[in-house]
Amino acid sequence: MSEDKKIKVAILGATGSVGQKFIELLCDHPWFEIHELAASDRSAGKKYSEAVNWVMQTPLRKEIAEKVVVKCDPNLESKIVFSALDASVAGEIEENFAKAGYVVISNSKNHRMDDHVPLMIPEVNADHLEMVKYQKFGRGFIVTNPNCSTIGMVLALKPIQEKFGITALNVVTMQAVSGGGYPGVPSMDIIDNVVPFIGGEEAKMESEPAKILGSLNKDHKVDFADIKISAQCNRVGVIDGHTECVQLNLKKKGSREEIIKAWNEFSAEPQKLNLPFAPKNPTIYLEGDKYPQPKMHRNLGKGMAASIGRLREDTLFDYKFVVLSHNTIRGAAGGTILIAELMKAKGYLEKYL
Amino acid sequence: MSEDKKIKVAILGATGSVGQKFIELLCDHPWFEIHELAASDRSAGKKYSEAVNWVMQTPLRKEIAEKVVVKCDPNLESKIVFSALDASVAGEIEENFAKAGYVVISNSKNHRMDDHVPLMIPEVNADHLEMVKYQKFGRGFIVTNPNCSTIGMVLALKPIQEKFGITALNVVTMQAVSGGGYPGVPSMDIIDNVVPFIGGEEAKMESEPAKILGSLNKDHKVDFADIKISAQCNRVGVIDGHTECVQLNLKKKGSREEIIKAWNEFSAEPQKLNLPFAPKNPTIYLEGDKYPQPKMHRNLGKGMAASIGRLREDTLFDYKFVVLSHNTIRGAAGGTILIAELMKAKGYLEKYL
Amino acid sequence: MSEDKKIKVAILGATGSVGQKFIELLCDHPWFEIHELAASDRSAGKKYSEAVNWVMQTPLRKEIAEKVVVKCDPNLESKIVFSALDASVAGEIEENFAKAGYVVISNSKNHRMDDHVPLMIPEVNADHLEMVKYQKFGRGFIVTNPNCSTIGMVLALKPIQEKFGITALNVVTMQAVSGGGYPGVPSMDIIDNVVPFIGGEEAKMESEPAKILGSLNKDHKVDFADIKISAQCNRVGVIDGHTECVQLNLKKKGSREEIIKAWNEFSAEPQKLNLPFAPKNPTIYLEGDKYPQPKMHRNLGKGMAASIGRLREDTLFDYKFVVLSHNTIRGAAGGTILIAELMKAKGYLEKYL
Amino acid sequence: MSEDKKIKVAILGATGSVGQKFIELLCDHPWFEIHELAASDRSAGKKYSEAVNWVMQTPLRKEIAEKVVVKCDPNLESKIVFSALDASVAGEIEENFAKAGYVVISNSKNHRMDDHVPLMIPEVNADHLEMVKYQKFGRGFIVTNPNCSTIGMVLALKPIQEKFGITALNVVTMQAVSGGGYPGVPSMDIIDNVVPFIGGEEAKMESEPAKILGSLNKDHKVDFADIKISAQCNRVGVIDGHTECVQLNLKKKGSREEIIKAWNEFSAEPQKLNLPFAPKNPTIYLEGDKYPQPKMHRNLGKGMAASIGRLREDTLFDYKFVVLSHNTIRGAAGGTILIAELMKAKGYLEKYL
Repeated sequence: MSEDKKIKVAILGATGSVGQKFIELLCDHPWFEIHELAASDRSAGKKYSEAVNWVMQTPLRKEIAEKVVVKCDPNLESKIVFSALDASVAGEIEENFAKAGYVVISNSKNHRMDDHVPLMIPEVNADHLEMVKYQKFGRGFIVTNPNCSTIGMVLALKPIQEKFGITALNVVTMQAVSGGGYPGVPSMDIIDNVVPFIGGEEAKMESEPAKILGSLNKDHKVDFADIKISAQCNRVGVIDGHTECVQLNLKKKGSREEIIKAWNEFSAEPQKLNLPFAPKNPTIYLEGDKYPQPKMHRNLGKGMAASIGRLREDTLFDYKFVVLSHNTIRGAAGGTILIAELMKAKGYLEKYL
Repeated sequence: MSEDKKIKVAILGATGSVGQKFIELLCDHPWFEIHELAASDRSAGKKYSEAVNWVMQTPLRKEIAEKVVVKCDPNLESKIVFSALDASVAGEIEENFAKAGYVVISNSKNHRMDDHVPLMIPEVNADHLEMVKYQKFGRGFIVTNPNCSTIGMVLALKPIQEKFGITALNVVTMQAVSGGGYPGVPSMDIIDNVVPFIGGEEAKMESEPAKILGSLNKDHKVDFADIKISAQCNRVGVIDGHTECVQLNLKKKGSREEIIKAWNEFSAEPQKLNLPFAPKNPTIYLEGDKYPQPKMHRNLGKGMAASIGRLREDTLFDYKFVVLSHNTIRGAAGGTILIAELMKAKGYLEKYL
Repeated sequence: MSEDKKIKVAILGATGSVGQKFIELLCDHPWFEIHELAASDRSAGKKYSEAVNWVMQTPLRKEIAEKVVVKCDPNLESKIVFSALDASVAGEIEENFAKAGYVVISNSKNHRMDDHVPLMIPEVNADHLEMVKYQKFGRGFIVTNPNCSTIGMVLALKPIQEKFGITALNVVTMQAVSGGGYPGVPSMDIIDNVVPFIGGEEAKMESEPAKILGSLNKDHKVDFADIKISAQCNRVGVIDGHTECVQLNLKKKGSREEIIKAWNEFSAEPQKLNLPFAPKNPTIYLEGDKYPQPKMHRNLGKGMAASIGRLREDTLFDYKFVVLSHNTIRGAAGGTILIAELMKAKGYLEKYL
Repeated sequence: MSEDKKIKVAILGATGSVGQKFIELLCDHPWFEIHELAASDRSAGKKYSEAVNWVMQTPLRKEIAEKVVVKCDPNLESKIVFSALDASVAGEIEENFAKAGYVVISNSKNHRMDDHVPLMIPEVNADHLEMVKYQKFGRGFIVTNPNCSTIGMVLALKPIQEKFGITALNVVTMQAVSGGGYPGVPSMDIIDNVVPFIGGEEAKMESEPAKILGSLNKDHKVDFADIKISAQCNRVGVIDGHTECVQLNLKKKGSREEIIKAWNEFSAEPQKLNLPFAPKNPTIYLEGDKYPQPKMHRNLGKGMAASIGRLREDTLFDYKFVVLSHNTIRGAAGGTILIAELMKAKGYLEKYL
């Protein structure tokens, strides 16, 4: 796509750490072009480099640094907006944009469980996109990305769900500090320590997977998957990458080999459509007792793959395994971009451009 | 007890990190006196300060530094020996000592599951000590301390088991690096990382609790408790303190309040006997979503208490909670010393002095 | 001293992390009794346990938790007040208290360099206390504790200054995150990282030592010591304990042995007066290439001693060495308490009680 | 260069962490092709994947995994060998290879200070290569890469030395754990800690820069630069990236702006020759008080650039600043590869192919 044909996008909440990650990942995107950066009234009017405390590991690009931050008001030139807004304000602002005819692709939690709002993992429930036609916000619509700790796990569950069915799911997480934003987790809380609590996280992990793995019904809503879920969430001293110990019961018997095969062969709509951010293998099974590990595997598939290891039979459940994924790439900005790519490829953006 | 009436003890494997912890904890013990330090042939004959790479956080005492290390042969003057031996050699050496008439109180795994060998947590199964009378090693006998990740959890389970019974147990651990000894876990493996595997650890956690919580039968062996157990063990970047997410099913219904009350009121033989290393409250329930945390709570009860928090009803099990304990104090050297104190108080050492 | 004879003290800024450390350290103090806790208007009126986010590693005591927080107004019953106020408000509040007849012993930077205000390390410049008689604030007065990174270093310098004189001083620090307060340093900034900058820190280290090591003149002010100082300050991922690489030039030649002897024999007014918080040895020289280390040595002398190691001749300066001290004990609350003890022992508090 | 025209190279010490880094970096090299992997007798004969404990953050390539490890004997097909050997064996093995007609490009310390052996930083002393003609080892020759803590600093010094001259140099380092190899630094030593000592490191930093910055004399040896150097080396809990606080005196006055300009415009032989591993800017000056930081800047120039910040006038020296470089890329394997590239581009390899 030539430079002048790229789709102009805006980022709402552009100065926060998720907003920064959107910028870092979209900088060289083949289809999208960062056109506007929106943030709080406090930042609006300033040059982005003056409004932001840039904490990414790659330097801030000159062309971005120079942009003047605008307010989060629905009078932007870009009709496609990525939302990295804080949950305290995201609900209303995103609605305002949808009402005004914008396509909002959001990483915020506010509208995730709303009727007709897809909670998307492109490899898992691409068909849910259709629901947007029945949204009542106005001319535009809202699509959401799940919680960072949900995404990697549900990617790993999808091929199992398809082949064998899942009836019960138990997960204990060890989550990276970047999930808490910036400044986020104080260093005094996490060096030489574990914090066995992340506000609201367990509730999200116990509710979101059932919607994502559910199926559309004739009312264009989601019939939730019938899976009993328990989640325990912990914060550990890791920069990026959520590690999760998962146990599950199957509806239909499956061997260890069959499950590993299902992961290694898993390929879905984003792979078929060859979307720019789609990892070649969305779920990678790693042999070796000690894998996956955040430091070694979070960047597989450019941070978009879920790495899985240690699948073994369990005494209480049918199976247990460990899954790892990059929480700020696949689990936030990168996952949201992949949704946008899917929407573009399926024609959902056309009439808004 | 006046200084010259103290019981002379030896430490086998005195130069390793567990051996060092024994020394640190026994230095001012009111009943025991470190008389001999035994280690590998390579160390024997050297002054302790020259044989050891001291990694404790308190300085090495002069009187210990000056001791000449001896071999791990059963010709020591001390008749009570604490074993901090590596599992690769502990089996045979401990047997040799028992055969030769020594009382071996061991932190090593080798004899833990042997018939007639008590696997002791003094607050949990003080009555198991009686089994030593039926051991066949010779004039002496062996008593063992459980694995570091088992102890804190079983302390928390005991009051529940007593009052309500436990039928199923699921645990996911986040374990400190000190559990891997010294040099142990390489820093390149654990900074900004989690390792979802600790060799042999899950098998220990799935087998030891049933023995500890079991009951003596007429053959003077243990009838294992009938609890189905699943364990997943992870290493995290914490110096001391194992944090464990536990889920369980009860035999008999119990309310959240009743369980917390059971923990807060728990007191057992070591408390009644007022043993020097016995914490006043072996299990401490902490209110507050974010507790327990290793950095804040590992030293409660001088490192001998299990800290518990976040008890809540679960969707898959009856309850879930988090337990934390100090892995090198309660989970290793300190726990072993408490066993020795119990034995002394109950008259098991008398005829060996 | 019997309980009812203890001196009532107040803590200004009692909810911050330095305030909490004052509470933790004063709880069992033989001379002082925490009578009042003062904090911002937002906290005033609440029970302390509700106003504070307690981050100390020992549990909050019941009797403290129950106290109702008061405002930082000079109408307290305690006439001796410890100030742990933030620099943004300390200047004025401390003056108000001094004007109103209170003795303010402050950890804040605001009045450190004022004329007639002693900047005290009790082992170094006990005689500077006399200046308070010439303060102009009113009936009360202000005494200050130096910056956390200054104190350990100046303790190490004092015996050298006394015996040989110092003409030039170069220091590079590696400072603990607790020095930044709570929440302070974000974990995303310090895990797997170093931050080569701490706002205002280098200026403090380049100015304070000259005042502390200076001498009183006939105007009852300090003639600063004539030492050229350069400081570079870095933040590293350590919880407690500042490690500092020091180089210096001597006025008068001294051998390595003489300097080590000077440290090991160093004893001053607090030791002679047997003050409760005075470490037996304020400066401890550790043999061994790898020492001192924060994890191993920060708690020597109950966190009140400076640990020193690696003294060696240098190619550019006369000598170089490493000094370590506990930044929140000796470097903040503990050091300030020792000043109060010195004042009590020398009769400076009497007329205010 | 077409695949079959690539230069076959071997890696000596291929299973260690530096050897692994060589493999990771050479995998897609446009000029060199990994042909043979050599290691200790213990590894020889095994498939590489079985001989190695792969600790790199990118997965081990299949084609490398399958190679059979050979002994470090000079009967390899590759005539160009990269040495990642441990210093305990590197001296003799490298000599054997040189005698037998191989070109040895070594990261080991053993021959660094030998007469006629270039100690190379391609941007700094490309002309030193000429010395190899006068080596006496035999038909082959040895070229060496400096110590990891030396390289980044000397890169930063070079433009200053050229323009203003340097007479004195003081450096205090905060070095990453990867510099200690694998398993290397125990996690118990570095979590929540600093170790103010790295064996042999200070001596290297005090001697190597003078050779690298020296000039060839008529005897084809190096006249060392006349710079007095003092180094203090510390280990901190960082995975990759050495941060160094540098102070220096200039021969000729230079302003802050001139020095920064010298860094930002610095370009040398590798840049002119457009060598594959040459960073566009070898020295990058970063504005902003808090820079450089290892986590943010170690990967600049694909890990081959030195990042510099905080240049300011000093009270004791003329200037002080902070420099950071990636110790396992620019400081080890990457730096050594750049030397090989320079040699290839300058015709030093031709007659050995």
